[in-house]
Amino acid sequence: MQVTGLAAKSATTPLEPFEFQRRELQSGDVHIDIHYCGVCHSDLHMARNEWGVSQFPLVPGHEIVGRVISTGSDVTAFKAGDLVGVGVMVDSCGHCSQCNQGEEQYCEAGYTATYNGDEKVIGGKTFGGYADSIVVDSKFVVTVPESLELSAVAPLLCAGVTTWSPLKHWNVQPGQKVGVIGLGGLGHMAVKLAHAMGAEVVLFTTSPSKGSDALRLGASKVVVSKDAAQMAAEVSSLDIILDCVAAPHDLDPYLNTLKANGHLVLVGIPDAPHTSPDVAPIVFRRLSISGTSIGSIRETQEMLHFCGQHNIVSDVEVIRLDEVETAFERMLKGEVKYRFVIDMKAARP
Amino acid sequence: MQVTGLAAKSATTPLEPFEFQRRELQSGDVHIDIHYCGVCHSDLHMARNEWGVSQFPLVPGHEIVGRVISTGSDVTAFKAGDLVGVGVMVDSCGHCSQCNQGEEQYCEAGYTATYNGDEKVIGGKTFGGYADSIVVDSKFVVTVPESLELSAVAPLLCAGVTTWSPLKHWNVQPGQKVGVIGLGGLGHMAVKLAHAMGAEVVLFTTSPSKGSDALRLGASKVVVSKDAAQMAAEVSSLDIILDCVAAPHDLDPYLNTLKANGHLVLVGIPDAPHTSPDVAPIVFRRLSISGTSIGSIRETQEMLHFCGQHNIVSDVEVIRLDEVETAFERMLKGEVKYRFVIDMKAARP
Ligand SMILES: [Zn+2]
Ligand SMILES: [Zn+2]
Ligand SMILES: [Zn+2]
Ligand SMILES: [Zn+2]
Repeated sequence: MQVTGLAAKSATTPLEPFEFQRRELQSGDVHIDIHYCGVCHSDLHMARNEWGVSQFPLVPGHEIVGRVISTGSDVTAFKAGDLVGVGVMVDSCGHCSQCNQGEEQYCEAGYTATYNGDEKVIGGKTFGGYADSIVVDSKFVVTVPESLELSAVAPLLCAGVTTWSPLKHWNVQPGQKVGVIGLGGLGHMAVKLAHAMGAEVVLFTTSPSKGSDALRLGASKVVVSKDAAQMAAEVSSLDIILDCVAAPHDLDPYLNTLKANGHLVLVGIPDAPHTSPDVAPIVFRRLSISGTSIGSIRETQEMLHFCGQHNIVSDVEVIRLDEVETAFERMLKGEVKYRFVIDMKAARP
Repeated sequence: MQVTGLAAKSATTPLEPFEFQRRELQSGDVHIDIHYCGVCHSDLHMARNEWGVSQFPLVPGHEIVGRVISTGSDVTAFKAGDLVGVGVMVDSCGHCSQCNQGEEQYCEAGYTATYNGDEKVIGGKTFGGYADSIVVDSKFVVTVPESLELSAVAPLLCAGVTTWSPLKHWNVQPGQKVGVIGLGGLGHMAVKLAHAMGAEVVLFTTSPSKGSDALRLGASKVVVSKDAAQMAAEVSSLDIILDCVAAPHDLDPYLNTLKANGHLVLVGIPDAPHTSPDVAPIVFRRLSISGTSIGSIRETQEMLHFCGQHNIVSDVEVIRLDEVETAFERMLKGEVKYRFVIDMKAARP
């Protein structure tokens, strides 16, 4: 199945137009016409091989929304015309203890990534959503509510579920206090989702200029993390913190803001270790430092239903496919509020 | 109420005999004739002011067992002659959210320590169990099963409940795999308790010589942590690890042995930070690094009932009160299997 997209041919050259083959529709597959694809920070890391695992050519993109073109003979959950999404995973082993619990994101054999994963049917690597269509096992396809602005739904498939999953896993309840560190692609979704769940949201940021935006997105309070007095006012007050900052930093000031039994959940992976945390508050208040990786397909579907009910989407800036390199450069400078999304139907000017 | 005991008069002088006053019996109090008192590592740290908080004279001892001499007018749970224990706490605020949940060990106002805490009735500091009797609020007194060897019960009041509490809090079930790092006073109780709960216990140690003892105490397997091949054989296999080593060390090899959703629970507080943990396995397998501090009074009582049913006590070496300084020196050299206990009734030779 012939497809047109955008690929990195090497770690050092700009993305360029690329014609490639998808596998033919299998009996359990769905063929999706891609309308929008979000631009995740991982896309940039992978296109430039910053994690050392990229195979080229590489077609990025794992925040995919579009409409079903056709379905394999065994597919009953979807039909042509349905509005659907595909996120970070397109397959998993299906039979390990994690897959059996519906936690494919922790598959013991490793899930199959939407791009740069192992394509199980035709071999080679999977190609992502910077393309006009995609073929995916229906078990890894989710239904998108028709009511939402479609361009702004795309980032929910990665940034949305990555922050939704820990809020649900650690059972955040209305009235609880949730901290969010960093107002970027992940952080702005964490603020919106936790607020819609009825939590009181405290945003921690190093940039006082982000305060008004955080309040607009649903935060009750903005704390400038470099301000010791502001930090001291939050001591022992939070139930859980989602740490959305991938750069290495000191975790201790945040541990101090947690109540007994509180959780500091790391969403990003720094390229060098964080400052080693002080063990005393962890022991004396039974705190935990945990991590979380995306979310399951079930959680992704639940999150999309919730977003449909609460009219939640991402804050996005829509670009054309030929603007991705410029978007990458602006992401590196932090010049995006809060996610770029590629309109796959937009013609070059 | 006049009492005879053993006190540190300063951080640099040996413990010496000491006459002091306990408060008069209050309506809610129990007066206990002390039969045995365990010698905890904290006693040594506090006697020598290694944590910088000691007030002298200081009477150590928070692993206390004995018989009730008399009770205050409001006490219904105990009567003269009852076999009872007192652990690390003798009071707490009684009305914070933690106390309201029966988690006095995490009292937001700080629990009152059995020694070197603030004595609320007569002022000054509380004095511990290296003494012939003690007066304690009955809410902080627990019942000791008559069936157990009393000298060996004493360490259950600190080392026992400190390892029991995390095993219960993280809901260890029969058939789960529990790791224990370090076979000392805490570790040997963790092995016994986890084994009796029906878990499969893996002991991690740097000392191959501890292997046979660990197997005798209930471990299914002993892993020499410096042996990379032995560590590799445990990858992704454990549900929870109790890290009973207080010296700073590298946590990453242990994180690698945890299954998805596994917990590394720190029981000791190092005097310098551990090596900063690698975030990747924490994120990719949703691991947690947590801590735990002693246990509640309710948990202490449940643990003692459990130990009575399963005939579990500590492995102890019984000493006289005048042998405490020698015991301290031997503890520093690791020459104790696995806890010294003072026989308060033993006359000097
Ligand atoms: Zn992503
Ligand atoms: Zn699997
Ligand atoms: Zn102790
Ligand atoms: Zn309290």
